[in-house]
Amino acid sequence: SSPQLVCVNDYEKKAIGILDANARGYYQSGADDEQTLHDNVADFKKWRIRPKMMVDVSRVNLQTSLLGSNIAFPICIAPTASHKLAHPQGEIASALAARAMDTCFVLSTLATTSAQSLAESVPNSLKWYQLYITKNRNIAKEMVKRAETYGYKALVLTVDTPLLGTRRADVRNRYRLPPHLRMENFDGISALSTELNAKKKGSGLSIFTHEFFDQSVTWADIAWLKSITSLPVVVKGVLTAEDAEHAISAGVAAIIVSNHGARQLDGVSSTIMALSEVVRQVGGRVEVYVDGGVRTGTDILKALALGARAVFLGRPVLYALAVSGEQGVRDILTMLARELKLAMQLSGQTDVNDLSKDLVVHESRIARL
Amino acid sequence: SSPQLVCVNDYEKKAIGILDANARGYYQSGADDEQTLHDNVADFKKWRIRPKMMVDVSRVNLQTSLLGSNIAFPICIAPTASHKLAHPQGEIASALAARAMDTCFVLSTLATTSAQSLAESVPNSLKWYQLYITKNRNIAKEMVKRAETYGYKALVLTVDTPLLGTRRADVRNRYRLPPHLRMENFDGISALSTELNAKKKGSGLSIFTHEFFDQSVTWADIAWLKSITSLPVVVKGVLTAEDAEHAISAGVAAIIVSNHGARQLDGVSSTIMALSEVVRQVGGRVEVYVDGGVRTGTDILKALALGARAVFLGRPVLYALAVSGEQGVRDILTMLARELKLAMQLSGQTDVNDLSKDLVVHESRIARL
Amino acid sequence: SSPQLVCVNDYEKKAIGILDANARGYYQSGADDEQTLHDNVADFKKWRIRPKMMVDVSRVNLQTSLLGSNIAFPICIAPTASHKLAHPQGEIASALAARAMDTCFVLSTLATTSAQSLAESVPNSLKWYQLYITKNRNIAKEMVKRAETYGYKALVLTVDTPLLGTRRADVRNRYRLPPHLRMENFDGISALSTELNAKKKGSGLSIFTHEFFDQSVTWADIAWLKSITSLPVVVKGVLTAEDAEHAISAGVAAIIVSNHGARQLDGVSSTIMALSEVVRQVGGRVEVYVDGGVRTGTDILKALALGARAVFLGRPVLYALAVSGEQGVRDILTMLARELKLAMQLSGQTDVNDLSKDLVVHESRIARL
Amino acid sequence: SSPQLVCVNDYEKKAIGILDANARGYYQSGADDEQTLHDNVADFKKWRIRPKMMVDVSRVNLQTSLLGSNIAFPICIAPTASHKLAHPQGEIASALAARAMDTCFVLSTLATTSAQSLAESVPNSLKWYQLYITKNRNIAKEMVKRAETYGYKALVLTVDTPLLGTRRADVRNRYRLPPHLRMENFDGISALSTELNAKKKGSGLSIFTHEFFDQSVTWADIAWLKSITSLPVVVKGVLTAEDAEHAISAGVAAIIVSNHGARQLDGVSSTIMALSEVVRQVGGRVEVYVDGGVRTGTDILKALALGARAVFLGRPVLYALAVSGEQGVRDILTMLARELKLAMQLSGQTDVNDLSKDLVVHESRIARL
Ligand SMILES: Cc1cc2nc3c(=O)[nH]c(=O)nc-3n(C[C@H](O)[C@H](O)[C@H](O)COP(=O)(O)O)c2cc1C
Ligand SMILES: Cc1cc2nc3c(=O)[nH]c(=O)nc-3n(C[C@H](O)[C@H](O)[C@H](O)COP(=O)(O)O)c2cc1C
Ligand SMILES: Cc1cc2nc3c(=O)[nH]c(=O)nc-3n(C[C@H](O)[C@H](O)[C@H](O)COP(=O)(O)O)c2cc1C
Ligand SMILES: Cc1cc2nc3c(=O)[nH]c(=O)nc-3n(C[C@H](O)[C@H](O)[C@H](O)COP(=O)(O)O)c2cc1C
Repeated sequence: SSPQLVCVNDYEKKAIGILDANARGYYQSGADDEQTLHDNVADFKKWRIRPKMMVDVSRVNLQTSLLGSNIAFPICIAPTASHKLAHPQGEIASALAARAMDTCFVLSTLATTSAQSLAESVPNSLKWYQLYITKNRNIAKEMVKRAETYGYKALVLTVDTPLLGTRRADVRNRYRLPPHLRMENFDGISALSTELNAKKKGSGLSIFTHEFFDQSVTWADIAWLKSITSLPVVVKGVLTAEDAEHAISAGVAAIIVSNHGARQLDGVSSTIMALSEVVRQVGGRVEVYVDGGVRTGTDILKALALGARAVFLGRPVLYALAVSGEQGVRDILTMLARELKLAMQLSGQTDVNDLSKDLVVHESRIARL
Repeated sequence: SSPQLVCVNDYEKKAIGILDANARGYYQSGADDEQTLHDNVADFKKWRIRPKMMVDVSRVNLQTSLLGSNIAFPICIAPTASHKLAHPQGEIASALAARAMDTCFVLSTLATTSAQSLAESVPNSLKWYQLYITKNRNIAKEMVKRAETYGYKALVLTVDTPLLGTRRADVRNRYRLPPHLRMENFDGISALSTELNAKKKGSGLSIFTHEFFDQSVTWADIAWLKSITSLPVVVKGVLTAEDAEHAISAGVAAIIVSNHGARQLDGVSSTIMALSEVVRQVGGRVEVYVDGGVRTGTDILKALALGARAVFLGRPVLYALAVSGEQGVRDILTMLARELKLAMQLSGQTDVNDLSKDLVVHESRIARL
Repeated sequence: SSPQLVCVNDYEKKAIGILDANARGYYQSGADDEQTLHDNVADFKKWRIRPKMMVDVSRVNLQTSLLGSNIAFPICIAPTASHKLAHPQGEIASALAARAMDTCFVLSTLATTSAQSLAESVPNSLKWYQLYITKNRNIAKEMVKRAETYGYKALVLTVDTPLLGTRRADVRNRYRLPPHLRMENFDGISALSTELNAKKKGSGLSIFTHEFFDQSVTWADIAWLKSITSLPVVVKGVLTAEDAEHAISAGVAAIIVSNHGARQLDGVSSTIMALSEVVRQVGGRVEVYVDGGVRTGTDILKALALGARAVFLGRPVLYALAVSGEQGVRDILTMLARELKLAMQLSGQTDVNDLSKDLVVHESRIARL
Repeated sequence: SSPQLVCVNDYEKKAIGILDANARGYYQSGADDEQTLHDNVADFKKWRIRPKMMVDVSRVNLQTSLLGSNIAFPICIAPTASHKLAHPQGEIASALAARAMDTCFVLSTLATTSAQSLAESVPNSLKWYQLYITKNRNIAKEMVKRAETYGYKALVLTVDTPLLGTRRADVRNRYRLPPHLRMENFDGISALSTELNAKKKGSGLSIFTHEFFDQSVTWADIAWLKSITSLPVVVKGVLTAEDAEHAISAGVAAIIVSNHGARQLDGVSSTIMALSEVVRQVGGRVEVYVDGGVRTGTDILKALALGARAVFLGRPVLYALAVSGEQGVRDILTMLARELKLAMQLSGQTDVNDLSKDLVVHESRIARL
């Protein structure tokens, strides 16, 4: 009798009915007026696919690699905080799903599961660790060390968050983790949860970020990071050609075009619109991925055609987790992989690594064709 | 007391109230998010008519021909599966209406009436047969033989369906034919219905397509098709200049610009926007038709002005059939022919064969004129 | 307690509550899907005013002339059929209001008041007569003779109506005049009303048009019209540069850019968008006016800036008539003249005859400025 | 239980529930159809921010100056009439808030608090006086004298109001000040309130403006104004390059790009769209500010990037005043300053005086990048 879940948006709708106001507000909201939150999804629709018919699509390859590690399809899990708000098994459920589907899971610094316990519960899988640079560099340093120790294969440095953007729902809800949860990656490094929960007004996470994250970080600090680790550094949060160039000069291994799920600065470009600019500037020198608003197989097809090597999923994973834990996450990964495959077959494409820009056209050009 | 049916959309509204959820979902839905379903109709509105006044329009010619066969007006019936879901008389009612109005009817491979019984019930009329190339080539071969035997005048090869697009309503409804109906064109060739009905999850038609249609077909297979038949081959489902050129090289007699009623790959261009590109590439070498979203006389006027020789109707026929069988189909054909004639008279046009591109202008150009 | 009527749209809202379904449908509706009906109003908003500040606007001239006859302001009454559906005093009330305000009234061929009785009831005012060319030329000829006899100063030949556009409400309502009304201009020429009322299905007016109007008229017929009258000929219904040139070659005195209130061919350009094209082509050789969608003083300002010498009002007059007869029509004329004057003062303009194109800019150019 | 006020729009929503119809109508409404009222807010969203990541934003400077006077941030209070309609403490509350936050307050000629009593209640703060030029020049002259006497630092001459635009709510409500309030700046110069209240129909303020304001003022009158005062003259209401040039030639010290909160001439450009044109023309010769539709920190960031030195707030101040008097106004100033600071930090900007045009891009250019 409950309607079947046949697309990613069905998971969102169902999750919304399950999550409490605190978690729902935290997961759903974007910064300020949420213009970019809307655009992230809507701008995918502005690209039209130019399909090729009568191509032998009986065999389609979805396999690709991230920095040399193979993945079954170019759909990975973005770092998002606090999976245990969605499901008691939290990040472990998500990472188990990623492993089952043979794709990459990125653990957030702000996860409710520590890098260590995740690695112990989900060995033998491709895991990356997302990092923020903290005022107290020892915290970041210790996290990098743990990431290395527990087998994470890359550091994803998020560069768009010197401070937290204003998500109004969180301010209204005075968002904070419930008492039984904590940001476990800080265990043994810094006492957080008490401090955070003591605060009375506004978003607890915003107060935390203000206190812990370093607002003075520059591209030069990538050198520092590289000096303390042998892991490749992926920067997450680049939206312009200029910053892509800075990132390459700083020696990064890959770039994630991202606006943090439209949660930081409202009014920036959607990521699918920013992607072309970055890809053109990068010119193949490093790998480029994208996240933000990916909800269907055709979204992924378009992102790949515009030059992304893979896409990452934020909210869809959290919603799927809320709906049915590990199985939910498996389901949406399976669903999107199936949708991507079908979109390729219906547009005459046989290999995710061979999609090119002429597969799509921006709607503003169509009348002029 | 029931409101009169004065335009094609009135038939849709009425039919929606008559059809059961299974049929309604199957008829109405487009692929995925149904962006292209929306665009197919909406993009017609983006073209503005530039009418000529004070032309003698007391006599207007609507007659034209398809591959040499005369038709009373350039409005034909596209191949759509399963007419008996709409009305017990099914495809026969539709074909009788087409004959009465002196236009072309295309029978779908997936029809609920066999090519033979349709031809016997509706002799002396212009009928084409729509074909899918099956994995087991003997099925397609036998269908071609029957089409020839029973007097079909062309083969319409649908090239946009190596697999079925995802129509979410069908997945939710586990769409399948009710037990008293079957795809009669497979009678005596392959046992289908049982197999199909045995399946439990998702769209039965999608499962069927996956099993029976050949995903490895290429333009080279047109040569094979031409080698087994003397009928002209019309390809249905071309959306780009490149594929139009492939089709011509392969020796087709005509091209239908179509996106399968937006049921295959969501995010492709509407057909009225794709039409110009194909027409320019074809340059008169073969006939070009269009289907998708045609709902009014001015839609048809615009399609013809942009270079289509005729338009084909999908859903409107099914809705009219549901409302009042053969008479309903006659009614909408009459209505559209009348609307087309009036649109010509009000824009100073006297012959459907003489409409030219300067009759229309895209809205994006108007401010610049 | 009833809300005050402070703008033209207030009259529409109020009239809608007063008129019966037959009249309401007839007055409100546009052709087919009513896209152009929407655009006629909406496209005015796409032009932005570039105001000049600090101009002495203590004295503003609204006076101008139509073909040499002075009018108090460039806002006139377009020919519309059947004013008695709105108010028992019908066309006489409207013409009295026009006289009181010192502007031009155009009587429709299809008026419910004859040219004679209108002229007798409203002497000493500027009146024009709108003409359709009838199959039986004697009808038109007799009408022209009467127009001359009763002091009409110009013939407005409507060129966009060889047949009536499809207004769906009228088809549904089987629109016809109620028994106590008739098209009095046919009195003594041709027996109409019975015939018209005898018909059973569809719009009575459409049937009538089909039977009486000549579908074979061409620009050459202007010569015939000029041969039987000394009155200047104004053509109403031109939308393109090409037809403007034809009209000038045929010797017309003025052109009304009009799409018949979007009641003929749906999908043509709004009149405010067509105006520029016609004005450019005409290059001052004849006077150019515009009607369609004029609802505010800034609409009028824009039309004049884009080259119209005056605007004509269709529906607003009928709605005002329905609300309060002659006084209502006076009110909206006063209101619009006041709004125009204020718009001029707030944009630094002092004479309606001096408005120029640089006063406005199309929204599509603004980002490029 | 009452939802928290977390953004400027929350104050509007709350104020709407507090104000009576007369005041609400007066504060909210824009001219005529309120197209420009909508655009003032919406057009900010058409500019996208191009953020720079990894910039040291630990220290951000918001301080700037207006004509040499320092202010804590580039967010000032525009002149708006009748603050006592919102709160008994009226303009004094607003000015106290401005002083507390160290920014500029502009007193309206039509204030419900006199220049003198405001200055006495709020000494030691940056105050400007907004002026209209009256038919009886002695009124304006006396006002200028008082502004000088009581320490106002500039005269803001509003150039867009030779007459009042039509705000329909005010016409419907017969808007006028309640008996216990008066426009105190006219005390001892001219008797107003009785006269105004005696009138029966339409907007009382409109009648007043018509009688008192001089409709014949031109740019030449700036010379007169400069001849009677040593205060710098700021013109408010410029929307085009031409008028910016006139203003500079006339010797103004600064220009406020403004359309009077869309209350004068509907259909003019939004101020954020007009800003670029004016800034380009001015080329740094005088300071340029902007008001209209500023509601968020990113709006301010965009305005500054497009060349404004500061923004002014109209309605937000009135709404905040209605919600909680001086504290409310402090709150929104604090909120916007915080939002601006965060927007700068998230876009890699460290000084409000260094923002440049490449920080933003118009949405119409993005597809072309
Ligand atoms: C609830 C939530 C928490 C997030 N937490 C983090 C985080 O801790 N670190 C990070 O780099 N990005 C974080 N992100 C951003 C995601 O990594 C990703 O950029 C974004 O969610 C992609 O957009 P989507 O949600 O539309 O898929 C978070 C996003 C959400 C929705
Ligand atoms: C219910 C339905 C069934 C269809 N079945 C077929 C089919 O069997 N073969 C085919 O080539 N096209 C099929 N089509 C596509 C139509 O031939 C046609 O391309 C499309 O319906 C035109 O768009 P319209 O429905 O907007 O008129 C089908 C369309 C619909 C709506
Ligand atoms: C109810 C109605 C009847 C009309 N009758 C006539 C007519 O008899 N002759 C004619 O030339 N135009 C006729 N028109 C068109 C008007 O002259 C005019 O072009 C149109 O109404 C202007 O658009 P508006 O209604 O938006 O102002 C009619 C319009 C309406 C709304
Ligand atoms: C209720 C109200 C009264 C106003 N009174 C004046 C005034 O007396 N003098 C003036 O120059 N501008 C006046 N303005 C215009 C403001 O100075 C300012 O230009 C405008 O409000 C800015 O737009 P915003 O309201 O969207 O912030 C008024 C605006 C409003 C909303």
